[in-house]
Amino acid sequence: MIEDGFYYDFKYDPGFTPEDLQRISQEMEKISAEGHAIEREEMESGAAIEMFRSAGEDFKAEIIEDLAEATVSLYLQGDFVDLCRGPHVPSTKRLKAFELLSVAGAYWRGDERNPMLQRIYGTAFADRKALKLHLARIEEARKRDHRKLGKALGLFSFHQEAPGCPFFHPDGATVYNLLVDYIRGLYGRYGYQEVITPQILDVDLWHRSGHYENYRENMYFTSVEEREFAVKPMNCPTHCLMYSEQVRSYRELPVRMADLGRLHRFERSGVVHGLTRVRSFSQDDAHIFCTPEQIQSEIQSVISMIRSAQEVFGFSETRTYLSTKPGKAIGDASMWERAEAALHAVLESDGGEYSVNEGDGAFYGPKIDFCILDAMKREWQLGTVQLDFFLPERFDLKYVDSAGAHQRPVMIHRAVLGSIERFMGILIEHTGGALPLWLAPVQTRLVTVTDRQNEYATRVEATLKARGLRAKADLRNEKLGFKIREAQQNKVPVIAVIGDREVEQGSVSPRLRGGSQLDSMTVDEFAGWLVERSVPGDGGVP
Amino acid sequence: MIEDGFYYDFKYDPGFTPEDLQRISQEMEKISAEGHAIEREEMESGAAIEMFRSAGEDFKAEIIEDLAEATVSLYLQGDFVDLCRGPHVPSTKRLKAFELLSVAGAYWRGDERNPMLQRIYGTAFADRKALKLHLARIEEARKRDHRKLGKALGLFSFHQEAPGCPFFHPDGATVYNLLVDYIRGLYGRYGYQEVITPQILDVDLWHRSGHYENYRENMYFTSVEEREFAVKPMNCPTHCLMYSEQVRSYRELPVRMADLGRLHRFERSGVVHGLTRVRSFSQDDAHIFCTPEQIQSEIQSVISMIRSAQEVFGFSETRTYLSTKPGKAIGDASMWERAEAALHAVLESDGGEYSVNEGDGAFYGPKIDFCILDAMKREWQLGTVQLDFFLPERFDLKYVDSAGAHQRPVMIHRAVLGSIERFMGILIEHTGGALPLWLAPVQTRLVTVTDRQNEYATRVEATLKARGLRAKADLRNEKLGFKIREAQQNKVPVIAVIGDREVEQGSVSPRLRGGSQLDSMTVDEFAGWLVERSVPGDGGVP
Repeated sequence: MIEDGFYYDFKYDPGFTPEDLQRISQEMEKISAEGHAIEREEMESGAAIEMFRSAGEDFKAEIIEDLAEATVSLYLQGDFVDLCRGPHVPSTKRLKAFELLSVAGAYWRGDERNPMLQRIYGTAFADRKALKLHLARIEEARKRDHRKLGKALGLFSFHQEAPGCPFFHPDGATVYNLLVDYIRGLYGRYGYQEVITPQILDVDLWHRSGHYENYRENMYFTSVEEREFAVKPMNCPTHCLMYSEQVRSYRELPVRMADLGRLHRFERSGVVHGLTRVRSFSQDDAHIFCTPEQIQSEIQSVISMIRSAQEVFGFSETRTYLSTKPGKAIGDASMWERAEAALHAVLESDGGEYSVNEGDGAFYGPKIDFCILDAMKREWQLGTVQLDFFLPERFDLKYVDSAGAHQRPVMIHRAVLGSIERFMGILIEHTGGALPLWLAPVQTRLVTVTDRQNEYATRVEATLKARGLRAKADLRNEKLGFKIREAQQNKVPVIAVIGDREVEQGSVSPRLRGGSQLDSMTVDEFAGWLVERSVPGDGGVP
Repeated sequence: MIEDGFYYDFKYDPGFTPEDLQRISQEMEKISAEGHAIEREEMESGAAIEMFRSAGEDFKAEIIEDLAEATVSLYLQGDFVDLCRGPHVPSTKRLKAFELLSVAGAYWRGDERNPMLQRIYGTAFADRKALKLHLARIEEARKRDHRKLGKALGLFSFHQEAPGCPFFHPDGATVYNLLVDYIRGLYGRYGYQEVITPQILDVDLWHRSGHYENYRENMYFTSVEEREFAVKPMNCPTHCLMYSEQVRSYRELPVRMADLGRLHRFERSGVVHGLTRVRSFSQDDAHIFCTPEQIQSEIQSVISMIRSAQEVFGFSETRTYLSTKPGKAIGDASMWERAEAALHAVLESDGGEYSVNEGDGAFYGPKIDFCILDAMKREWQLGTVQLDFFLPERFDLKYVDSAGAHQRPVMIHRAVLGSIERFMGILIEHTGGALPLWLAPVQTRLVTVTDRQNEYATRVEATLKARGLRAKADLRNEKLGFKIREAQQNKVPVIAVIGDREVEQGSVSPRLRGGSQLDSMTVDEFAGWLVERSVPGDGGVP
């Protein structure tokens, strides 16, 4: 969405009004209809500078001066000449489906001491249908903005005292903790062991791990007793310390350490964005220490975990990217070969398509990134699995092999959902706030018609809660329609209306968030119905 | 235990050897038998200084000089004269049951530029029986030192890179998370709502809350974008921010916000101690915002929660302390009166005894501290409930009363177990590491007699795990006796021995940690037996 500019806060300069955009659009349509040929021309830089200066286009002249190249390329259409590397369409006729979307003020060359310019954001497609679909998705994304929904649904808030650090309200914390529970369930199934490690550690450690050298711009530092400490941006070094506490035998491997510890990474206050770009978050982070022979089966297991999560959250369209050895890399060549072969083999057997980004791996090992497309077809990276031949060296990690010799283990960094905060932001937008039953902070709201049913509703609430369900009785002295509408706005999955008939029969009459009405059922049947559908991955309630 | 010096790391100065202590002890016994009268005498300070100087006791002379009082009191016994405020026993005959325990080096007046002295720690009781009981408890405490047990049981470790910040190993993290689950269960029952708040917040907030003024020596500071931030030592200010986000009606109160957020409080590296004195921890912390009329029922509910926890963890001996209005206090007098009357009333109806520490409350409100005695009869404070009239002022917190007028809510700080880390340390010492079944990291270990039973044991393990039990099969090719002994050393509550007979019958033969042997039962019966006893507070397995 970045190219459409919607997600940037900008100081709106009223230099261009919506009416201006409309007039510009009309002019563009005219130009398109006229079918001007667009031609490329090379010009000697000095001549180009002179030409633009005499036309009053000083900014373009300045760019050419800074480029310091012998010639530049220009594009001509009618009497308009632009400076551009290209490529361009051959004729203005080709631009039939376009839309001007917004305007932003921007300082020339991003420097606030320079003049302020106006940038008009637009988008173009091959036909009107594709454009309309795109615009509809933008509009949908605007409505689903998790920052708006998060506020409307009472999930979280922000305060100026802590930029980029969300305050999760009770309902938001419920969702957060349910996501953590889900992850812990996966850990149980896939043989991970959770650990809890410190957050503030001596800078010596960060020098040793290489984070100080490569990442310190994003770290928080603090000092006590004349010792410098850093707030951890990642868990890996603490896990290396724990691995090295004891002599490890090959029989113990793989060791799979999971850590939901809170991380802090400095982001400029201008770029933090809702839950999707924060300064403080927890990841479903884990590190696997294994023998080189175990790489393939471990990666296999990680992928299975990631695919299972993609399915549970209903991300049916996915993208997978394998990044291989870059020019500058550590670790011996045979290790890289073996590792990359293992990754290829696992991805082949995984069955899905994947793209290879040759040479795009980290210097310390190859990696696979797992992306999903959300309901608006936007791509988000969630899972990742990265081999690391570097940290085991840095921390001199070892295991004793079956012959009694010391060997270096391989370290695998991996995440399934990534940052819980960011995942929650993505999920809110993907679902439009209509979280699945198993994640909804309130699963069912019991709505009474009059005060007469309040006692019964309170009892039903208690019964459902005793079954571990998140039920809430709305006993306010408000009109039924008002209470139902509010529950719908709050995206409560199941609304149970309770009138005199329900009290008499000891029943409830559930209606689903999507609009459909179920047959009335006993409280016990209702509890069973909800429990059955409160399982991760159960599409259950529309 | 502090008076016995066991828990201080000290540089042992070999000036006094154990043999010296023995000889000193013998001399003390002689002096005791001789029955010297001990007499008090007042002396003019100048004369006392002269007397001590001429006896070569320059330190005592120095103390008298610094006291700058007209006279000092001396105690005489035989030919020995000591400087002391008293009181003393009337005769050395009275000292029959004593023991010299240890020696520590200490700089004169605690300043490392001064000479090093030797301090001999000793203890005395009215009779030998009381002394022996005390010494047995000290010995027991030494054996149960949670730092030793934590290491032996693989629960946690420390690294020099993070003084006072525990690394919880998988088994330790399991216990930690089970304690958190237990607390969350209480939250559900007592109507608390969990929130998640940031850890790093602008110093402006800490100025506003008064923490900067009163607590900054214990805080960590960090700076980004030329703004100063502090790592939170407490959650209260973030909860005040959340409370003030919206207009609150009296109908919404009480609001009970719980927060398990990680806190950081600087402690000097010389005083951090295992889990019981750390720099980084989470509390079962909550803040209640209520009307003055609700104080009594809220305190009642908190006490009920605390009593329930004391019972669950088997702390049968407790102490309760009410601290009342100090000389310097904020808030109007009628508020204090009403609050203290409420606290008294609730404590009276609670039934247990309580002591009143007159004038010992905080300047911002009265409080009740809840202490327990552990198995070694040591007193620990766990729970606390503190009224606060100050922060609601500082944050201008309000609610709209039934007449539509703005009122100031009362804020109640309260904790049940306090810091989870510290509680875990206390619990390990209280139980000697033999955690109750519901908290044990491994509840049952399945011990095979030979390899022939491994497949069956693996299946039993899976069956138990599927029931949510923490079972672990020990399939190692070791002698049965060795495997059982190890499980006992690891304080595993239930050891299930599996031989050919068990495989044939599809059964297990459980033996309990305490030594007793149960009748053999089917795997299903065994699972049911364990599940039934895996409930917080169930004494269950000895």
